[in-house]
Amino acid sequence: YHIPVSEFEYDAPSMKTPVPGPKSKLSPPPHSLFISQNVGAVNFFCNYEESRGNYLVDADGNRMLDLYTQISSVPIGVSFPSLFSQTAFVNRPALGILPPENFPEKLIESLLSVAPAGMTRVQTMACGSCSNENAFKAMFIWYKIKERGASGPSAEEMSSCMINQGPGCPDLSILSFMGGFHGRTMGCLATTHSKVIHKLDIPSFDWPIAPFPKLQYPLEQFVRENAQEEARCLEEVEDLIVKWRQKGKPVAGIIVEPIQAEGGDNHASHDFFIKLRNIARKHGCAFHVDEVQTGGGTTGKFWAHEHWGTGDPADIVSFSKKMLTGGYYFKDELQPDKGYRIFNTWMGDPSKNVFLSEVLNVIRRENLLEEVTRSGKALLQGLYELQAQYPHLLSRARGLGTFCAIDARDDVTRDNLILKTRDKGVLLGGCGEMSIRFRPSLVFKEYHAHQFLNIFNDVLAEYK
Amino acid sequence: YHIPVSEFEYDAPSMKTPVPGPKSKLSPPPHSLFISQNVGAVNFFCNYEESRGNYLVDADGNRMLDLYTQISSVPIGVSFPSLFSQTAFVNRPALGILPPENFPEKLIESLLSVAPAGMTRVQTMACGSCSNENAFKAMFIWYKIKERGASGPSAEEMSSCMINQGPGCPDLSILSFMGGFHGRTMGCLATTHSKVIHKLDIPSFDWPIAPFPKLQYPLEQFVRENAQEEARCLEEVEDLIVKWRQKGKPVAGIIVEPIQAEGGDNHASHDFFIKLRNIARKHGCAFHVDEVQTGGGTTGKFWAHEHWGTGDPADIVSFSKKMLTGGYYFKDELQPDKGYRIFNTWMGDPSKNVFLSEVLNVIRRENLLEEVTRSGKALLQGLYELQAQYPHLLSRARGLGTFCAIDARDDVTRDNLILKTRDKGVLLGGCGEMSIRFRPSLVFKEYHAHQFLNIFNDVLAEYK
Repeated sequence: YHIPVSEFEYDAPSMKTPVPGPKSKLSPPPHSLFISQNVGAVNFFCNYEESRGNYLVDADGNRMLDLYTQISSVPIGVSFPSLFSQTAFVNRPALGILPPENFPEKLIESLLSVAPAGMTRVQTMACGSCSNENAFKAMFIWYKIKERGASGPSAEEMSSCMINQGPGCPDLSILSFMGGFHGRTMGCLATTHSKVIHKLDIPSFDWPIAPFPKLQYPLEQFVRENAQEEARCLEEVEDLIVKWRQKGKPVAGIIVEPIQAEGGDNHASHDFFIKLRNIARKHGCAFHVDEVQTGGGTTGKFWAHEHWGTGDPADIVSFSKKMLTGGYYFKDELQPDKGYRIFNTWMGDPSKNVFLSEVLNVIRRENLLEEVTRSGKALLQGLYELQAQYPHLLSRARGLGTFCAIDARDDVTRDNLILKTRDKGVLLGGCGEMSIRFRPSLVFKEYHAHQFLNIFNDVLAEYK
Repeated sequence: YHIPVSEFEYDAPSMKTPVPGPKSKLSPPPHSLFISQNVGAVNFFCNYEESRGNYLVDADGNRMLDLYTQISSVPIGVSFPSLFSQTAFVNRPALGILPPENFPEKLIESLLSVAPAGMTRVQTMACGSCSNENAFKAMFIWYKIKERGASGPSAEEMSSCMINQGPGCPDLSILSFMGGFHGRTMGCLATTHSKVIHKLDIPSFDWPIAPFPKLQYPLEQFVRENAQEEARCLEEVEDLIVKWRQKGKPVAGIIVEPIQAEGGDNHASHDFFIKLRNIARKHGCAFHVDEVQTGGGTTGKFWAHEHWGTGDPADIVSFSKKMLTGGYYFKDELQPDKGYRIFNTWMGDPSKNVFLSEVLNVIRRENLLEEVTRSGKALLQGLYELQAQYPHLLSRARGLGTFCAIDARDDVTRDNLILKTRDKGVLLGGCGEMSIRFRPSLVFKEYHAHQFLNIFNDVLAEYK
């Protein structure tokens, strides 16, 4: 029953063709038929039946060590054996009205068993964007209920909201950070500020955007300089809250990632987040920590915010990706006053909770958080050594657990390094302007880190 | 292999306790633990293992004929036998970048095999709201590309979009209809106008809202009056398009349901939709038909818009619910110019496409659209008879296929009738102010219609 990852996966990468190989090419049939979808982002086609553990196999039989893992969304590798035994995925309920009888129990053994400090409530959703959208709605509803006190909504609020106008649709805002990424539906997108391609041509809201600290790495070596930069950003946060209140668009909530991922793996100190959380409290704003990419164990703790060491990290914590279902944890106060205010047909997918229960069992049984801490250390140490060896190519290695990144000289070098490393059988992803992000799953061991570092070293040594 | 629904489901409702029964009550443990979610909308808990075909079994063993089917999201009943044989639901890919090798083939045999007229492209998404949000984005992108012509975005557009401002985030709008429902994320919600509880306290966009025709039923008997009402609404649509253009918030797209569902099962003539589609074309707006609730065969045709009898029904058709995956079909012109403009991590869930292929096989093999037409006729005929018999309680019976509705005297009567019918073992849903909506799945046969009509007749006869 207990099968270590090394027994069901492969020993090493194995490349048979360039990538994308002939079977992954989009132009000749049958893949020309694939014009039916948006394919501008497709890297190659995959054979998931043959993929195992840390290894992704493509349609041409190329086997690659995967440090990007479906944009960081695979928790315990591909085809983990004990996940195959699950059944009952056929009948998808409308969870908000007709949940399966074992749903509370399944929630307790899955999502609630890893609830962040101070949170006993969770709302599942189908994906990360829906999770953040609904978390925003919960914050807006909470803010207005607080403002109204004992009285209900006025007749004017009820009629004006039906035609998108105030006071029923109030001018409330969410404060976000430059470089943040919180999804791409229209509410989320108004808090996303990492790349032009996400935002161009889409109408948005006039919501405040604060600068996120630009720190020097390693953090331990630049404590004083970084503290100054963080103080500057926190001051700006308070100024914006005041300014937007004066503008008549009060800040109902602040959203932040514990590490800005898509925006370039930008870290901040634990102190920064604790102070930010206190600013939110002081100004009556809800504090929303977006753990869609950082959550699920990849930083060596189940939630990245646990590193802050506070018992009251947030009012809302959203998740998706490695949690297999979208959703958000929230404090009692954020519970809407009525049913059907936070609602849709599916409200998640309980079949994903079944998988998650087993994923959590494996994480505990195999001490994967300790393993992540160990392999993350090996990975980051190796990156430090490589940037010392190739200072003209690499800089700013940084990370927490296996959630690591390093900067290339420029965007072209970054893209080339990723492609050349892939040709040798290792999958990487980019983020920010010129960073490479490492996002292996939780079954990435120390020896996988060394496997990658050796191959990456070869790529760097050959790089002209 | 071919098992008729009558052989695996139950013969009749069977009620053992009032609903919700003791095991469905939320107050005593273990369900008190269920405070962890938003439960304000939960009706009761279900035993999906015991549920079959048209019958939903609750946690207390009550077996109910289901005419509401998870808010109209179940295509061929519960636990259809051939769906159980499917495997490979464990590994969920980031579809936009690393699709499974059989994905094009699976799309062709599932979603593309039922593509609306004139459409060869489809984009899957995780849920209905995400589908509409991304369809809106596709329309905005299309509109701006058209406006720009050969030139790319300006430097000012690229910098301003990062801070949510114009011209990069333009003041474009989507025209929607009063009474429409298109989902609850913030973009969708700006086009949803059916109930206060959906919209109160959530910031919105100043987008134009046209009146939807308020028709008299049966439509055949009020052709002249209804045509006048429809002409009035269409005139208002054109006025709004002109007005919003003058306001500097041009209408990039028009969204409409073929039958307004959540808003009260409001129908309009085929002529109305064809004229609306022509108005969209004339003013350079994309035409988006939301078939989330009407699609998948419930009206007796696979898509409700097929009843209009035009070969060019729309530029975008969105779906979810019975299609098991969210998504939208779109015309070539609506394809964005670059990858990653319409994108997120999961972009749907290919395991749902596997189910959908089998659902479509069953629909064809068992001629379910003909069956729906037949059982829908029996249902509507029965409703006509009941409203003639109980004119003080019921009026305005209407429908297409089994997608039927009837109005109660008022909202209290409607809610009571639904509860009393449930106590006799039939599940119904409400919509609009005082309507009952019928949303059985596609395996609802003529004899199920008679079963329901007999029980409903008993409820009406006893109703004081």
